[in-house]
Amino acid sequence: MKIIVEKYGGTSVGTFEQINLVAKRVIETKKSGYAVVVVVSAMGKTTDNLINMAKEVSSEPGSREMGMLVSTGEMVSSALLAMAIQNLGQNAIALTGSQCGIVTSSDYDNARIKEIDTMSIKEQLLQDYIVVVTGFQGKNGRDITLLGRGGSDASAVAIAAALGAVECRILTDVSGIFTADPRIVNNASLLKGISYEEMIELAASGAQIMMGRSVEIARNYNLEIFIGPGFDNKYGTVITKEDNLERITITGLSSDEDVALVNLYDLKYVTRDTSLILNEIAEKGINIILMLTNRLSERKTNLTFAVKPEYTLEIGAILEVFQKARRIGHYSIDTDVAQVSVVGSGIACTHGVVADLYTALAQNKIDILMASTSEIKISVFIKKCRAISAVKILHDKFSLAGLKRELKGV
Amino acid sequence: MKIIVEKYGGTSVGTFEQINLVAKRVIETKKSGYAVVVVVSAMGKTTDNLINMAKEVSSEPGSREMGMLVSTGEMVSSALLAMAIQNLGQNAIALTGSQCGIVTSSDYDNARIKEIDTMSIKEQLLQDYIVVVTGFQGKNGRDITLLGRGGSDASAVAIAAALGAVECRILTDVSGIFTADPRIVNNASLLKGISYEEMIELAASGAQIMMGRSVEIARNYNLEIFIGPGFDNKYGTVITKEDNLERITITGLSSDEDVALVNLYDLKYVTRDTSLILNEIAEKGINIILMLTNRLSERKTNLTFAVKPEYTLEIGAILEVFQKARRIGHYSIDTDVAQVSVVGSGIACTHGVVADLYTALAQNKIDILMASTSEIKISVFIKKCRAISAVKILHDKFSLAGLKRELKGV
Repeated sequence: MKIIVEKYGGTSVGTFEQINLVAKRVIETKKSGYAVVVVVSAMGKTTDNLINMAKEVSSEPGSREMGMLVSTGEMVSSALLAMAIQNLGQNAIALTGSQCGIVTSSDYDNARIKEIDTMSIKEQLLQDYIVVVTGFQGKNGRDITLLGRGGSDASAVAIAAALGAVECRILTDVSGIFTADPRIVNNASLLKGISYEEMIELAASGAQIMMGRSVEIARNYNLEIFIGPGFDNKYGTVITKEDNLERITITGLSSDEDVALVNLYDLKYVTRDTSLILNEIAEKGINIILMLTNRLSERKTNLTFAVKPEYTLEIGAILEVFQKARRIGHYSIDTDVAQVSVVGSGIACTHGVVADLYTALAQNKIDILMASTSEIKISVFIKKCRAISAVKILHDKFSLAGLKRELKGV
Repeated sequence: MKIIVEKYGGTSVGTFEQINLVAKRVIETKKSGYAVVVVVSAMGKTTDNLINMAKEVSSEPGSREMGMLVSTGEMVSSALLAMAIQNLGQNAIALTGSQCGIVTSSDYDNARIKEIDTMSIKEQLLQDYIVVVTGFQGKNGRDITLLGRGGSDASAVAIAAALGAVECRILTDVSGIFTADPRIVNNASLLKGISYEEMIELAASGAQIMMGRSVEIARNYNLEIFIGPGFDNKYGTVITKEDNLERITITGLSSDEDVALVNLYDLKYVTRDTSLILNEIAEKGINIILMLTNRLSERKTNLTFAVKPEYTLEIGAILEVFQKARRIGHYSIDTDVAQVSVVGSGIACTHGVVADLYTALAQNKIDILMASTSEIKISVFIKKCRAISAVKILHDKFSLAGLKRELKGV
């Protein structure tokens, strides 16, 4: 049994007409010789509407009941899609996250998938049913949990991995993964393929297309992901392992204006206090995007890190204590920054990429506030107002406009 | 732990404002010293809207997926009510039919409750939570089932019975049970009390207030039901056992215009063929409301029964076969009829009730097509256009306008 998992987002099932189109499309996939599992998001703006309803009755709705409330959006769309498929003469069954055995952690609004008992799904596939699964949700004990941002992608990828599917298709209203956001760079190139690692780095540095978490699961199970439009086979990008791709120095650019830089100057007990500060931040559930330490001299060490701007108040409170105890000289928090990243599996083994990047930005008088490099990524933090220019300049500098990233042997 | 179960219908939770009112009311019940379980229907027209959505994608939506779709209406209202209660500072938890252990038969759209595992609910009540339960639904295996018409009442009564509650309150937009439908008879009297048996007979003969099935469960568990408005304590009717009520000859009248009479003339092999015909009807899931046989002579027996009009085509097909085989002389199906019933626990032991009824109708030139009596009910079938007059005439004849039915010792 060769299984394909297809995931349709909210804009693909926004109307009854679209639901019927999706029904036809999944039947086509079935008729081309695959067992098919479909994962659906809630129709159009349903999720937002449900969240607004909660706000009408409570100033601070409990997350357990929020899970129950919001999960109904995907129940409606998956029941309707199963009905539409049945109406076209093909057996179909709709299963909730709970019914198809998606067990998660207990954070009701940001749960992580712990395991999937695939028995229910497999049983139905063997009986020749198309299985329609509610995206974005799972269960913890008897309770309904939500998978958090990008949750339907996570459902699809995790189910595909657990079932040993040959492919997971994320079908959406974008054409695929580009060398840069096409809304910013109008000659951005569509990539035919991208490696798991490159995609994880792009996601981490602001590309909104897919959560890194889902790509990580796919990488761990060596599962190919196709991202592209549901109704046009000309477009789309395959996320796969490096070996299946032509080697290329730079694959893409991303920018993130939703970021803040925190600077700590003159740390006294560098190792001990850095550890203490980072632990306090972690305890509050705050994720550090990037961090640099800079030892200027024996007794003068600075520490800089990037976080999401919504956490700056909490971080300020933590640092205030350390400053009062004179364990840091002073600190500053800058929210007027953007992170621009260059990603490509060839960066580590290509000379001069960092130099080229610095040169291009310097020539255009764009100051780099902080920079960090890894094997496959260079991230720079600059003033927010220069982010769009920087992306355009670097897209030109690295000649990404004409880039063709093909899959090997295709 | 003294438990009260309160059920709020769709019109009681139609707006966010009403949900807040219900939240306040159940907290009041809790503060008056009870553990509280609340059963809610879907908000306003939600159920109809969901059914219409299904019709948009399928000409004949499957009942399993319909169950999943429609069940979301109650999930939304119960999640919102739990949030509203929490917002007022009281612990609350929303549970789906499946989460609170309501196990049903497998008819997805007309399931019957088989058992309730009350452990989940009790656990929460012991922790001082108000438990909000989705009405109208249960589970069969992993699947969601719907309880059919009046299903939320059935949920409330069955949960109250299983928990050994002291009372089940069906809170609604009607003032209680009247001696006749107040839309027909404007001086109908509100009854303070009615017996289980009277209520079952009223429900069976057209009173739309509550399904007989729910009243039967209450009777079996000796559970008192209060039916009345949620926000006004002056009104309401208690359904209880006969012993708790003043004896009264006639309690109420009901009429049902949604009925058809089937007449079979000159049955040849009465016992055998009646049995055959009734079995064929039962196999098609058709319920016979009332039946009379009338042996005119040794070889001439007529059979008359009443059914819902939507089944007359199917019944015609069955009878056609018997007529062609010359085992019945001929048959007729009359859909231009109404059933008018007089209900009261004193009918059996009061002389002349039937005579009074016939006299009143005869004086007003209302022909009786068929009549049937039981211990506590007399039903007559008349032309549909006379139904309203008949109800008014009988309401006067039995002096129900000034009736006061009180509970004993109140």
